[in-house]
Amino acid sequence: MLQNTYPGKCSGTISLEATLYRRVLPQDCIAFSSTQGRRLFKEAINSESNFMQIYFPLAEQFITQAEPAFCGLATLAMCLNALQIDPGRLWKGTWRWYSEELFDCCTSLSVAREKGISLSEFLCLAKCNGVQTEEYRASKALKMDQFRSLVKRCCSDSSEIMVLNYSRIVLGQTGDGHFSPIGGYHADQDMVLLLDVARFKYPPHWVKLSLIFEAMQQIDESIGLPRGLVILKSDVKNCLSQNELSKSMDPAAAKMVRSQPCCFGVTTIPPFHSSQAYIR
Amino acid sequence: MLQNTYPGKCSGTISLEATLYRRVLPQDCIAFSSTQGRRLFKEAINSESNFMQIYFPLAEQFITQAEPAFCGLATLAMCLNALQIDPGRLWKGTWRWYSEELFDCCTSLSVAREKGISLSEFLCLAKCNGVQTEEYRASKALKMDQFRSLVKRCCSDSSEIMVLNYSRIVLGQTGDGHFSPIGGYHADQDMVLLLDVARFKYPPHWVKLSLIFEAMQQIDESIGLPRGLVILKSDVKNCLSQNELSKSMDPAAAKMVRSQPCCFGVTTIPPFHSSQAYIR
Repeated sequence: MLQNTYPGKCSGTISLEATLYRRVLPQDCIAFSSTQGRRLFKEAINSESNFMQIYFPLAEQFITQAEPAFCGLATLAMCLNALQIDPGRLWKGTWRWYSEELFDCCTSLSVAREKGISLSEFLCLAKCNGVQTEEYRASKALKMDQFRSLVKRCCSDSSEIMVLNYSRIVLGQTGDGHFSPIGGYHADQDMVLLLDVARFKYPPHWVKLSLIFEAMQQIDESIGLPRGLVILKSDVKNCLSQNELSKSMDPAAAKMVRSQPCCFGVTTIPPFHSSQAYIR
Repeated sequence: MLQNTYPGKCSGTISLEATLYRRVLPQDCIAFSSTQGRRLFKEAINSESNFMQIYFPLAEQFITQAEPAFCGLATLAMCLNALQIDPGRLWKGTWRWYSEELFDCCTSLSVAREKGISLSEFLCLAKCNGVQTEEYRASKALKMDQFRSLVKRCCSDSSEIMVLNYSRIVLGQTGDGHFSPIGGYHADQDMVLLLDVARFKYPPHWVKLSLIFEAMQQIDESIGLPRGLVILKSDVKNCLSQNELSKSMDPAAAKMVRSQPCCFGVTTIPPFHSSQAYIR
């Protein structure tokens, strides 16, 4: 019997057989650090098409989700840190920084801990934290060529990050709804690199673009709509000007979110319409 | 005034001026995702000498330390996950995984949260968690050529990780004692890639091997000895055999630590002698 050592939880015992150390990655998913994964990475990074630009800021901020249902919150924290957005509020010690605990907004952390968050709640949190968002439901109106063009756009620059909301089932993985940012694109193989924050379960991996596209098209049963994607971009209008920045910050990098009360609800987010691919 | 939103801490207010969003990286340190950093990375990854093998498993498990003084604990968690060591005890949900909270051993977490840990405590924790260690104090007996050979050895394979304990002061950084794993080596430039877990402060960066060597030679005032390095390697003798592994685990990867009571002290660790470079 093993002791649950995590502070803040009721202590208890659980049998070894009831616990897991990772899962075997399905055949269609190629682990980042496998021989094949390293080869794909090297080919992509050396390609003249250069769709690995977004890899660098994301690799700098890759994290493991702090709770089993925090895939959306962890993905957002990772992306906001990669976009060098200053949260304008305290994390720990004297530092301002994003981690999942800072997202007690749009939905409560206790609910997120139990159920995770929806794509709408992800959008709400992103907007509340001062990023521009461009969102697409993977309805029939969104074609694979359009998706590929968006992937290429986001991967060829360090200023925009694409986050996918998809069903793990299509990838042959256990579980269902999940969030991952795209960390790069291999044009010749038409594969994307998923920087999956559930690293206690699966390592980061390469998958065919067509497969992840199909995984996004699956219906989110909780709302009866297909899943989709969000592109995150730092919003200069919502950020403090350079003159307003604290002298303690890197003046070339920091983009502070204007202090604002949290909406504490998702009513400010326009509802998705499945007939539209591009909402805003 | 900003609200401290981190749960578990007493809530309180702190003025914006008293908080920080990162620090400017000194000139001798080249940020991983800067133009120069990307060039160094690409050169190193394409070099025939191939000293970027360790980059892949470490990049998969790069984390941000969960507390301002947890650099040693976070570095160890990252390395044990990169070496695919199964802790044999529960993390969260049904998962076995390493995060700082699992290291309530050798010293208490509350003391580590206040003071951080020493190199001796880092070693104690590493041994308690079933890894082989090879440790060197950066005394005069350790020559730079020997250090460079060790760096090359650890970076040319995915099975050994070198962790440095050094003074940030020599690098022109704020703070003092710190732990970082080496994520790769650029032979032509004689530079190492430090995957610094204090990502709220500095991004990962390249530094000259000679500079980090000097930073390791600084005296740790708390014990009157120079700092140094530890090489971590999974210890097959201390791991369960494949037959003992749970069916739920990836049989090709998992190395479970034998369940053992924590030592709750550093007395089992042989003391360092400054006249010796290589202790065991």
